[in-house]
Amino acid sequence: MRATDVIMKKRGIKGKLLEPLTKEEIEFIVNGYVKGEIPEYQISAWLMAVYFNGMTFEETAILTETMLHSGEVMDLSSLSGPFIDKHSTGGVGDKLSLPLAPIVAACGIQVPMMSGRALGHTGGTLDKLDSIAGYKTNLTTEEFCEFISKTGFAMTGQTKKVVPADRLLYALRDVTGTVESIPLITASILSKKVAEGSDGLVFDVKCGQGAFMKTLEDANALAVSLVETAKTMGKKATALITNMNEPLGRMVGNFLEIEETIDILKGCGPEDTSALTLSLAAEMLILGGKAGNSEEALKLAKDALASGKALELFLKNIELQGGNPKTLMEEYGKRRSRFSMELKAEQDGYIDSIDSFALGLAGVNLGVGRNKTTDPVCPDAGFELLKKAGDKVTKGETIMLVYSKDSASINAVLPSLQKAVSYSGTAPKKQDLIFKTIK
Amino acid sequence: MRATDVIMKKRGIKGKLLEPLTKEEIEFIVNGYVKGEIPEYQISAWLMAVYFNGMTFEETAILTETMLHSGEVMDLSSLSGPFIDKHSTGGVGDKLSLPLAPIVAACGIQVPMMSGRALGHTGGTLDKLDSIAGYKTNLTTEEFCEFISKTGFAMTGQTKKVVPADRLLYALRDVTGTVESIPLITASILSKKVAEGSDGLVFDVKCGQGAFMKTLEDANALAVSLVETAKTMGKKATALITNMNEPLGRMVGNFLEIEETIDILKGCGPEDTSALTLSLAAEMLILGGKAGNSEEALKLAKDALASGKALELFLKNIELQGGNPKTLMEEYGKRRSRFSMELKAEQDGYIDSIDSFALGLAGVNLGVGRNKTTDPVCPDAGFELLKKAGDKVTKGETIMLVYSKDSASINAVLPSLQKAVSYSGTAPKKQDLIFKTIK
Repeated sequence: MRATDVIMKKRGIKGKLLEPLTKEEIEFIVNGYVKGEIPEYQISAWLMAVYFNGMTFEETAILTETMLHSGEVMDLSSLSGPFIDKHSTGGVGDKLSLPLAPIVAACGIQVPMMSGRALGHTGGTLDKLDSIAGYKTNLTTEEFCEFISKTGFAMTGQTKKVVPADRLLYALRDVTGTVESIPLITASILSKKVAEGSDGLVFDVKCGQGAFMKTLEDANALAVSLVETAKTMGKKATALITNMNEPLGRMVGNFLEIEETIDILKGCGPEDTSALTLSLAAEMLILGGKAGNSEEALKLAKDALASGKALELFLKNIELQGGNPKTLMEEYGKRRSRFSMELKAEQDGYIDSIDSFALGLAGVNLGVGRNKTTDPVCPDAGFELLKKAGDKVTKGETIMLVYSKDSASINAVLPSLQKAVSYSGTAPKKQDLIFKTIK
Repeated sequence: MRATDVIMKKRGIKGKLLEPLTKEEIEFIVNGYVKGEIPEYQISAWLMAVYFNGMTFEETAILTETMLHSGEVMDLSSLSGPFIDKHSTGGVGDKLSLPLAPIVAACGIQVPMMSGRALGHTGGTLDKLDSIAGYKTNLTTEEFCEFISKTGFAMTGQTKKVVPADRLLYALRDVTGTVESIPLITASILSKKVAEGSDGLVFDVKCGQGAFMKTLEDANALAVSLVETAKTMGKKATALITNMNEPLGRMVGNFLEIEETIDILKGCGPEDTSALTLSLAAEMLILGGKAGNSEEALKLAKDALASGKALELFLKNIELQGGNPKTLMEEYGKRRSRFSMELKAEQDGYIDSIDSFALGLAGVNLGVGRNKTTDPVCPDAGFELLKKAGDKVTKGETIMLVYSKDSASINAVLPSLQKAVSYSGTAPKKQDLIFKTIK
């Protein structure tokens, strides 16, 4: 087999119908690249051909399977399952993984959660967990399994041994204009999620200005691809396409989002993040066979909150993974960066919208996220939103509290934050939280 | 400027109209590659994006200009011009450059001809010239100009200093499935032709089974791209799309085609190659301002044959470039490989067609061309076609004489040669020689 022929087949050959690549061809390309036998210039040409001609769900499933077998696959055989996980495509204020895992675990589902770090304007679950002093996010497989066996969930980062093909391919895609390809995004997400050992997956495909998928059309294409490819691989899967025009919840940051997690688990979280957490939990419970329909599933999830079981598991997990729940509860509501500012309303009226993308970008500069992968994050940076879209404000009223790693950054982001808030004379129409469900 | 951004612009960015690349962007990519500042994996992704999204004639002209200035440009300032050259996209039995140059030179046009070697199933002018003992095809610029000043034309190969960007890009395209791109083919051809100093160019775009462009649609797209891009660069240009279903003329090989050249120059060449040579000559004379229309131009070209002037210049050039015209004329009709065979008709009837592609491929194995660029060619290998499409044959009659580098190769190609000839009970319809003219 020659790499050039596989590239040409994916590119299309004049006079021939475009045919899907075979398992052998996809394995040849991916394994050849990982082993260093096929040069990057052939892989990048192939990636660009995939960008233009796409892949069938079958091809995407083969690609995913090949990628995930390029490295270590998590061995959860010491546990009994069912194993269900959630993946979000990333948003601003999206802390939903944190309350979700203990809620679902409280209902008897095992959640082997491998998370990532802040990327661009979006936050990262690992960075949020790292804001808890002592919390370990680099668990060994043994620790991961042990903690799941004790509380029904555990949270860790990916080791370098998991899906090396994705790291290599992503680095190449990043510099060759081939990031924005639905099958390549699908394989990248799924290979990591399947490698962590889940039987079923719920995808939270964010859609809107603060999401990577700006339009419903794009979000739908990704959601369908994720669900269909996962099913082709024999996994159960559901996707929710959810609104990411507004920042989610009241808190955006690292430790600030741990606080909102506690609020949600106590049953006093913001309306949007609480509702979305319960909806995602319900889908996970259905996939895990704990409920036959949404109504039953939602009831189970709400009970897990009301009984205090979910919060208890959350705090127990913090202890297991090296943190101190007592310290955490003492810091709750008090631990704030000393570099802060109040953003005031510039006029009377209603908040029409708060641009989540602009907020996310400002957050990067304040220390919530990173400009370079080697930058440190600031655990206490972020935003506390006192007002959200639809709220009535009078000029000079505080819209949000802004916390930063230093004072210079606050001044630097101030103009963009002022621009991020738009006003309206009348109350704006309330936006849907969930746009679409794909099963 | 970042290479990734230029790749993405050529690939297309969601929500933006596809915009042509600017001069700065194209220069950044090509010069960055030649200087080793942009890695191959970015160039190959960019090439694949060009394959899918094409280029405007303006972009192709900028690409061509950038490529040609990557190396030495022939300085013909010591000569007076006009300089007109022809380029063929390559065929089987296509020796037309050889008689064409002296015919046109005899009419007062200067022909600075830089040729290539056999490629795939098609022959190469340089390999044909090399079959003349002593003939030098690696002239210095001084020799090239001197010989043009004496006979109106000279023939040489490209030095490594001419258009290095094309050599680099072609090598990369060859292994990344990006050869078959009209703008990339156009820039590759034109950069070399413009670098040799021509004011006007006649393109012989071959079309049919023995050509790289198999369909009229593809040939037309290339012809239009060549002519329009050349015009955008301020050059005069005409393209003929010509029939390459049948091998051209009676001779296919290296020295064998030198013989047919002499036949054409003597006015007793085969009908097809003689007529096509005159048509191409006429277009060159029109571009060079020596004739106002085809009729006038054809008369001038025929006069150059009838007067013996063209043959005289051809022989003089051979002497100037190190060959011996006397020896050549003595060898004419006699110099044959001792490894030969007669291919006989397998049935009574008419020759319906001789597959030029099959003949070309068989020729490579006999030694006319090369399987690898480092293979030597055999000067005396080839085919002498006694019958062509439309000729009546009786079973056992000789269709062609086959000459090889050795006896084993003859046996090896015999079955494919037998298959290359098809028969018909009735005389087949005579095919057009020229399908279309594009000015």
